[in-house]
Amino acid sequence: MIKPELPGGFKDYPPSEMIPRQAMFDKIRQTFELFGFVPLETSTTQKDEVLTGGESNIEKQIYKVYQRSEDKDDGDLALRFDLTVPLARFIAKSSGDLLRPFKRYEIGKVWRGERQQAGRYREFVQFDADIVGSASMTADAEIICLIYRTMKNLGIDDFIIKVNNRKILNGLSEYAGFAGEKNPKVLRAIDKMDKIGWEGVEAELVSIGLSNDGVEKVRKLIEIKKPDQEATLNLVGELMSDYGEASEGVAELKEILKYVKALGVPDDAWAIDLSVARGLGYYTGPVFEAILTKLPSIGSVFSGGRYNDLVSKFSSMNVPATGASVGVDRLFAAMKELNLVGNETKTVSQVMVLDFEPAVRESCLKVLADLRNSGIPSEIYMGSEKGLKEQLTFAVKQNLPIVVIIGGDEDSRGMAKVKDINKKEQIEVSQREVSEAIKKILSI
Amino acid sequence: MIKPELPGGFKDYPPSEMIPRQAMFDKIRQTFELFGFVPLETSTTQKDEVLTGGESNIEKQIYKVYQRSEDKDDGDLALRFDLTVPLARFIAKSSGDLLRPFKRYEIGKVWRGERQQAGRYREFVQFDADIVGSASMTADAEIICLIYRTMKNLGIDDFIIKVNNRKILNGLSEYAGFAGEKNPKVLRAIDKMDKIGWEGVEAELVSIGLSNDGVEKVRKLIEIKKPDQEATLNLVGELMSDYGEASEGVAELKEILKYVKALGVPDDAWAIDLSVARGLGYYTGPVFEAILTKLPSIGSVFSGGRYNDLVSKFSSMNVPATGASVGVDRLFAAMKELNLVGNETKTVSQVMVLDFEPAVRESCLKVLADLRNSGIPSEIYMGSEKGLKEQLTFAVKQNLPIVVIIGGDEDSRGMAKVKDINKKEQIEVSQREVSEAIKKILSI
Repeated sequence: MIKPELPGGFKDYPPSEMIPRQAMFDKIRQTFELFGFVPLETSTTQKDEVLTGGESNIEKQIYKVYQRSEDKDDGDLALRFDLTVPLARFIAKSSGDLLRPFKRYEIGKVWRGERQQAGRYREFVQFDADIVGSASMTADAEIICLIYRTMKNLGIDDFIIKVNNRKILNGLSEYAGFAGEKNPKVLRAIDKMDKIGWEGVEAELVSIGLSNDGVEKVRKLIEIKKPDQEATLNLVGELMSDYGEASEGVAELKEILKYVKALGVPDDAWAIDLSVARGLGYYTGPVFEAILTKLPSIGSVFSGGRYNDLVSKFSSMNVPATGASVGVDRLFAAMKELNLVGNETKTVSQVMVLDFEPAVRESCLKVLADLRNSGIPSEIYMGSEKGLKEQLTFAVKQNLPIVVIIGGDEDSRGMAKVKDINKKEQIEVSQREVSEAIKKILSI
Repeated sequence: MIKPELPGGFKDYPPSEMIPRQAMFDKIRQTFELFGFVPLETSTTQKDEVLTGGESNIEKQIYKVYQRSEDKDDGDLALRFDLTVPLARFIAKSSGDLLRPFKRYEIGKVWRGERQQAGRYREFVQFDADIVGSASMTADAEIICLIYRTMKNLGIDDFIIKVNNRKILNGLSEYAGFAGEKNPKVLRAIDKMDKIGWEGVEAELVSIGLSNDGVEKVRKLIEIKKPDQEATLNLVGELMSDYGEASEGVAELKEILKYVKALGVPDDAWAIDLSVARGLGYYTGPVFEAILTKLPSIGSVFSGGRYNDLVSKFSSMNVPATGASVGVDRLFAAMKELNLVGNETKTVSQVMVLDFEPAVRESCLKVLADLRNSGIPSEIYMGSEKGLKEQLTFAVKQNLPIVVIIGGDEDSRGMAKVKDINKKEQIEVSQREVSEAIKKILSI
């Protein structure tokens, strides 16, 4: 006998998780489509070089794939680690017949061979929305508004969307007087502000080799908290105007500010936050991340930014792009913790027709067909228990709200019993009227 | 620069395919939930031995997976080739806390390293519904009814569900006087009846070594076409009653016949067909397959059967099961051929707000927000074209039915133009009334 084990780092989602998880996916999809994003589904399996571009830190993480058929001309294959690289490949390939700007969403699995950690899996779902082929700041404002509307539609109120611009951060080395090559390390340090606080960040900056004056300048910048976004941006503009492309970054954020307001996102739902750097190297402009104010420790749940150079890995076209990704598994776990996901759901059915008297089974099936014709999700008991009581117990364990009971006595009179399990009430109606009676109980 | 190529046998689904494809998935899911099936999502990545059980013909087909991290205790990994084996593993593993009968559906990708053929991909989607833990023929009747309702909900009328029972076919060697070990070959031959006709089947049976008398007996059986299912079953019963478990198989089908009728499936939507064998080895009882009567050549689009022994690979529990799987990609291709899928759809938006005068952009964004608040999927033009005409051309190319135009003149009066592209009509309304005006045009 074969052991029914999953490999470490992989999991199944049982119905009790899948039912609310899918409801969450549906709401996200609905919101994305309201914004005019269209679905794209990319191949999970890609050529190795497309995914890694030869970068060894990516190569270490990806899952390689091979098969032992006769046909050997497949070359090196691997599973995608995100949905953005397959998107960039798709754009480069379909340059001729795809209208741009192109707004797409994709929901799909990605695989990463990360070190095993509690709550982190090697196969997980991403849900991305991207606008490809637009350099306009309206596109970035749309992404911020999309994050806002998605969170609200999911029933989440306690969140904040933090916004920054890589162009400002790229002026940091000149502003704080450290060597440009230290910038990635400095960004990684300040990005941890939420998690390790200023003291932690300060210690890292010192160890990176920043001067006291430099550290102080960084503090002054990332701790800016003005009563409104405009005042924040004005102050950042004053501090950074002479350094690199920081002024341009400030001007972009000022433009975004106007558009986000016009799109109806309330001021308290988002904030300019100079400590937001975002890990990925490919961002080139505005970056955004939403965190849950009641659970900041879990990090961002919906994040992204502008990446104007990604398609150029595959094509000589100039394709500016911006987008964001929901960390659906992390967000779902958080929603559970915040009691925003209903209690354990075991079923999608509303009604179970019991089947304890084989002689009247056909009457049971007719009622069942009638319930479905009325649009009421329903099932019939199909297990090995023969008794009414035992079947009723099964229905109760499944959290089914309504049970239909037809025995020989009821059937001889063309009747059925309809039992409301929560109210512990039972009525008898004619078999033809079962659907109507149940619609009344369910108020549909 | 890296070539933006996909590996052979893999594909992306662009929005023009994904929009109708997803509508199809939604309808299938809705039907499955109406029948009380709950969603399960199994890991795509499984232990090699779980998938193959050491069978070399499966081993040849599967994709193996590995990664180069430090952590080497993952063992042999592979990608699932169907959704049934991962289901059986899940059932065996969750024996303690899962109520049975368990009715689940799953939609997900599977991978097979098959020889490359036109229209056949190595990564494709399956959509399965199974009832696990029920030996009752009501379960098999439910699956037949599910196939019927799903096809109807997809707008397909010209199909037939063919039903047979492996128990009848298992009596074939005794009935037609050939050695039992030839049975799998004989079943594969008669399964091709649809594709190669009786003459083709006859030639194969002769080459397998059946006697003239044996061939004639097989013909008599698989060509049975009585005016109704009951008559067919009675004749099969007469012919086969002495052979193996055939009588039991006939009795099961008679029971199914009663239940399928009671469930409201019309007689002409299904037929007993003794030539249906189904390729997979694991079926133990009733088998079903739906074919499109206008496109029989593409084979079955929704098929399955009872498999009572699969879980026993992983557990000593006795878990009878039955189910079926939609070949969604094949079905989608067929629906396109039969013109059951709408014309090329490029967008999910109903409205595009043009953006050709930066000074009034905020008014455009406010109208956009208002449209979305009214539930109308909408977008704003975000490309590099500056002129009204060029932006309008873009909207027309995207098949957007309605365009909103706000220039400086309109904005100074608080107005907007709403253009119905199909009717070539244009009205001017106040910016606050744009949503209402568009709702009228769209009749929503």
